[in-house]
Amino acid sequence: MKYISVEQMEAATEQLLALGQKVGADSWQQRVKNQTPHCGFGEAGTCCRICSMGPCRITPKAPRGICGCDVHGIVGRNFLRFTAGGAATHSDHGREICHTLHETKADGNYQVKDPEKLKRIAHEWGVETVGKDIYDLAHEMAELALMEYGKPFGISRWLSRAPEHTQKLWHDAGIEPRAIDREVSTAMHMTHMGNSSLPEALVRQALRSGMSDGWGGSMCGTEFSDVMFGTPMPVDTEANLGVMQKDMVNIVVHGHDPSLSEMIVFYANDPEMIALAKEQGAKGINICGVCCTANEVAMRHGIPMVGNFLQQENVVLTGACEAIVVDVQCIFPALGPLSKCFHTKFITTSDIARMPDSEFIHFSPENAGENAKSIVKMAVENFKNRDPQRVFIPDLKVDATVGFSVEAIRKCLDTVTNSHVDELGTMKPLVECITSGVLRGAAAMVGCNNPKVRPDHAHIELMKKLLANDVLVIVSGCSAQAAARAGLMSKEAKEICGAGLKRVCELVGIPPVLHMGSCVDISRMMVLASEIAKDAGVNISQLPLVGCAPEWMSEKAVSIGNYVVATGIDTFLGVDPYVKGSSEISDWLQHGIRDWVEASYTVELDIEKLGDKMIERIEEKRRLLGI
Amino acid sequence: MKYISVEQMEAATEQLLALGQKVGADSWQQRVKNQTPHCGFGEAGTCCRICSMGPCRITPKAPRGICGCDVHGIVGRNFLRFTAGGAATHSDHGREICHTLHETKADGNYQVKDPEKLKRIAHEWGVETVGKDIYDLAHEMAELALMEYGKPFGISRWLSRAPEHTQKLWHDAGIEPRAIDREVSTAMHMTHMGNSSLPEALVRQALRSGMSDGWGGSMCGTEFSDVMFGTPMPVDTEANLGVMQKDMVNIVVHGHDPSLSEMIVFYANDPEMIALAKEQGAKGINICGVCCTANEVAMRHGIPMVGNFLQQENVVLTGACEAIVVDVQCIFPALGPLSKCFHTKFITTSDIARMPDSEFIHFSPENAGENAKSIVKMAVENFKNRDPQRVFIPDLKVDATVGFSVEAIRKCLDTVTNSHVDELGTMKPLVECITSGVLRGAAAMVGCNNPKVRPDHAHIELMKKLLANDVLVIVSGCSAQAAARAGLMSKEAKEICGAGLKRVCELVGIPPVLHMGSCVDISRMMVLASEIAKDAGVNISQLPLVGCAPEWMSEKAVSIGNYVVATGIDTFLGVDPYVKGSSEISDWLQHGIRDWVEASYTVELDIEKLGDKMIERIEEKRRLLGI
Repeated sequence: MKYISVEQMEAATEQLLALGQKVGADSWQQRVKNQTPHCGFGEAGTCCRICSMGPCRITPKAPRGICGCDVHGIVGRNFLRFTAGGAATHSDHGREICHTLHETKADGNYQVKDPEKLKRIAHEWGVETVGKDIYDLAHEMAELALMEYGKPFGISRWLSRAPEHTQKLWHDAGIEPRAIDREVSTAMHMTHMGNSSLPEALVRQALRSGMSDGWGGSMCGTEFSDVMFGTPMPVDTEANLGVMQKDMVNIVVHGHDPSLSEMIVFYANDPEMIALAKEQGAKGINICGVCCTANEVAMRHGIPMVGNFLQQENVVLTGACEAIVVDVQCIFPALGPLSKCFHTKFITTSDIARMPDSEFIHFSPENAGENAKSIVKMAVENFKNRDPQRVFIPDLKVDATVGFSVEAIRKCLDTVTNSHVDELGTMKPLVECITSGVLRGAAAMVGCNNPKVRPDHAHIELMKKLLANDVLVIVSGCSAQAAARAGLMSKEAKEICGAGLKRVCELVGIPPVLHMGSCVDISRMMVLASEIAKDAGVNISQLPLVGCAPEWMSEKAVSIGNYVVATGIDTFLGVDPYVKGSSEISDWLQHGIRDWVEASYTVELDIEKLGDKMIERIEEKRRLLGI
Repeated sequence: MKYISVEQMEAATEQLLALGQKVGADSWQQRVKNQTPHCGFGEAGTCCRICSMGPCRITPKAPRGICGCDVHGIVGRNFLRFTAGGAATHSDHGREICHTLHETKADGNYQVKDPEKLKRIAHEWGVETVGKDIYDLAHEMAELALMEYGKPFGISRWLSRAPEHTQKLWHDAGIEPRAIDREVSTAMHMTHMGNSSLPEALVRQALRSGMSDGWGGSMCGTEFSDVMFGTPMPVDTEANLGVMQKDMVNIVVHGHDPSLSEMIVFYANDPEMIALAKEQGAKGINICGVCCTANEVAMRHGIPMVGNFLQQENVVLTGACEAIVVDVQCIFPALGPLSKCFHTKFITTSDIARMPDSEFIHFSPENAGENAKSIVKMAVENFKNRDPQRVFIPDLKVDATVGFSVEAIRKCLDTVTNSHVDELGTMKPLVECITSGVLRGAAAMVGCNNPKVRPDHAHIELMKKLLANDVLVIVSGCSAQAAARAGLMSKEAKEICGAGLKRVCELVGIPPVLHMGSCVDISRMMVLASEIAKDAGVNISQLPLVGCAPEWMSEKAVSIGNYVVATGIDTFLGVDPYVKGSSEISDWLQHGIRDWVEASYTVELDIEKLGDKMIERIEEKRRLLGI
């Protein structure tokens, strides 16, 4: 199979849902029906529940809350809290990675797999590396990184990676993040009853809060994950529901933090476990990934990607899932009751994500090996409980090449650099392609699924449109998996590209949609944009580059949007971030912030128009550059 | 005037509202009408807006959100976020105090006024004090305190103040707070889409989050405020609207952080400013306080307390307020438009609390003196704009004695200790009064006003009932001001007490309602309870001591409730914390947590019954102790 259409995916889902109904399974599709229509106040952002005098809801007859806050203050506070929820979440993931780095040992559960990257970051941070044991250095860097979460003075260390112009904008706008957790607390404080209600102040802190994620916690997560688990390099894998295997023990890893999934992958390859699987009548152990965990293990181990956010129930509905093992974020509580309709073990592992109807096996760097092994064992021993009559694995599977870290992209570009004439290790070949017009520009496609948008359709159709228009697409998160599952991450997908992009793909040997990782890895995109701008000698905001989250749903996505915009990249949303109830907040986000950061949001619920607007913006940037 | 009844206060409010109507003033009373009835989902806690797939609302036909979260998960998440909002807010106030401490200088805007207290805390923290310049010590302690907000490892330093038994309960329950901001971020992460929905986990983190406030950020705020501005000792003042003065420039300070109000008080006493006021035709400058700022400046300078939370609009309605100067928290955005109906300047000073229709003068430790002076000057120069025809100051004013810090209580108790026989500086005389039954016990009355409860009525009537039943009352925040404004903080209020309490008041020379400060100062109550338990040789939970917030409205109050309960003190609420939609969360809070911390919540909306239950609980504790 070369490509899989959204219609094919939807047909598979329908078949699975029909099978689910027979065993009394609930589904998000049914729950959406039950929950529709949604509350108009909530959707508009005009309901305030921040103190117990209310809740207050703004209407023409009740234009202010009991405290006197107007609609702009209420919508703005809700938006800032939404951002803070996302920033705290991504950053806490990053913190866990730093704590894991602090526990690395040559003979421990976790090692330093990319010592060169660790040293590079140490040099950036002014830390001496010469003559230091790599684990001593790892622990020193972990402590410094953890201090980024709580240092009483100063701003994020990572900001210095951006072009000087961008740093100056941040400084002048007052959005340089201080300690990561402090920005969360500041956001919560500002939005507490009786504090800020001035739209400008709320929007400004929303940007700063987002910055503490992308140029703070997420960057810690990405960079130190690479140090421990290896910096991604292109690797071939497969995607879509057909990667589950009928004759194998299927363990699905789901969530975000690679500390868990890396260990599960390791023990799934343990000869003792494989032998045990064979004893149970299986041919072996098949690990596959859902959500960002899928991205993490795909890009480092070529583990197949079974599905994204709105596919998580489908995995269980196949009847072939022995265990769905989760850590944190975007995990449906629905998996608890759903797993009870099948033989599937739903295994939660983190204190951050405790759910009813799950088996909880507490996972920490100290007990990681032992507990990963017992999880794999539990799954293998569950194979015998599978009801073969209930197994249905849709026959959908395509190839994908994943793992385009900034380091990997640089290496790819080196292959088309004349090493006698030009410097290696730069973004200049890419800049030249853009300048010449062979590539019109690039789009970063990110974010979740959301039932408010036809799932995956917006991701896939927008990508196809961009590719046809010679726009290179870089992806992460659930958007990445939509691309992979449709076949757009295969090198053969060059065939659906415009002539320019096709030529670039052929020359450089890449697919037209570059997989940059999980949602914390949007920090990679910020580094990439910075490097390109520096090598092009222009500001980030001048680059023909846009960001897009057509189907986003989580608070993390809004935090991401805020740091992407704050970095100078125009960002296009297909779902409204609960702000339409305030003309002032909407205006700040869609226009006003441009004065601070040279970029802003566009919200457009019509996906076709959203694509047109992105391409228009890219062409406008080109005109302004005179290219 | 000896006492002021709620009816008298209400009559004054009615007169002010009538005057306000003439100039087109809006009021909270009107806005409550506009906002009633409130949304039933919001009030029950059963609406989830945490991701953009929703909002989801739980009904019998839609028992789960789109992600599959059930009502208990939704209510629990909302409750945890509510707590985190409060904990972040209090703690951030404490952080600002630590930053101010870091800026103290012998000849600067801020000095160390209680060096002995600073040294005591330094000894607690194992910091060497001998031979150290007091400002070097202050800066060192400030840095250590700031690290309490962000240290990567370990738990709060302040926990060691509690009895060992309490510390062990905290450890075993897993509710010892780590870095203060980290607990905020953890709470936000756990409640992000796709994380925790298990009631037990959400309630546990809500307690830990509260602990990071009361035994973390708030304690920093209280202790280092004392170091800089002096530890409160009993001082006489006056309370209620009549403290505003017709012939004076009236400057109302409102908010929470004493860093601002201390400087305003200082410059209001500046001969240059007083001369300027006289030039303008005023007899001088009168500072009075609203909300917790009132508590801060009353207990350290005897500044009169004009009103609490729901009186803030009344202050402007008098037409005699030249400036209302605010910092953070509990400030009605309504003050912006309201001040425009009068000559009043509404002056905001903090980046945390930016509001439309205000004049913003940014206030920081570095520019404090200069900016405080310019604020006082602005107010003085505004006197000429006052319209004497619009001035109406209700003739309501009573005496109050305030400022009972733990240190002050200890000193009071020393006066009834036989220094030849007994040790000085202990809580033993109080313990003896309780053991003998002269006092039946004590109640901590705290929290805000809330229009859902007849304002001040619950505070005042409950206190009267407790006093009549020989229960000593300790108070803070808006509850303290309700007491003061009613006349219950005067030493003469012994007359309405039972015989035992009356005798104690006479002997020790105290009012029966002890003013312990602002809402961050509930940390003082935790220290007091710890000291009493240690001196009595029992656990905190065994003491005949209860907490009560009959009219609470803010997230801070829930954070407080959680740390008070977690400290082993049964807590009684007169307003439901948006949890009635979940039987499981309600059950955890009202019963389940007792297994962890030996105390729990009682929610009772009937104020008469609430009082009965408190007294019953006190008597039950006595029976269990056999006293």
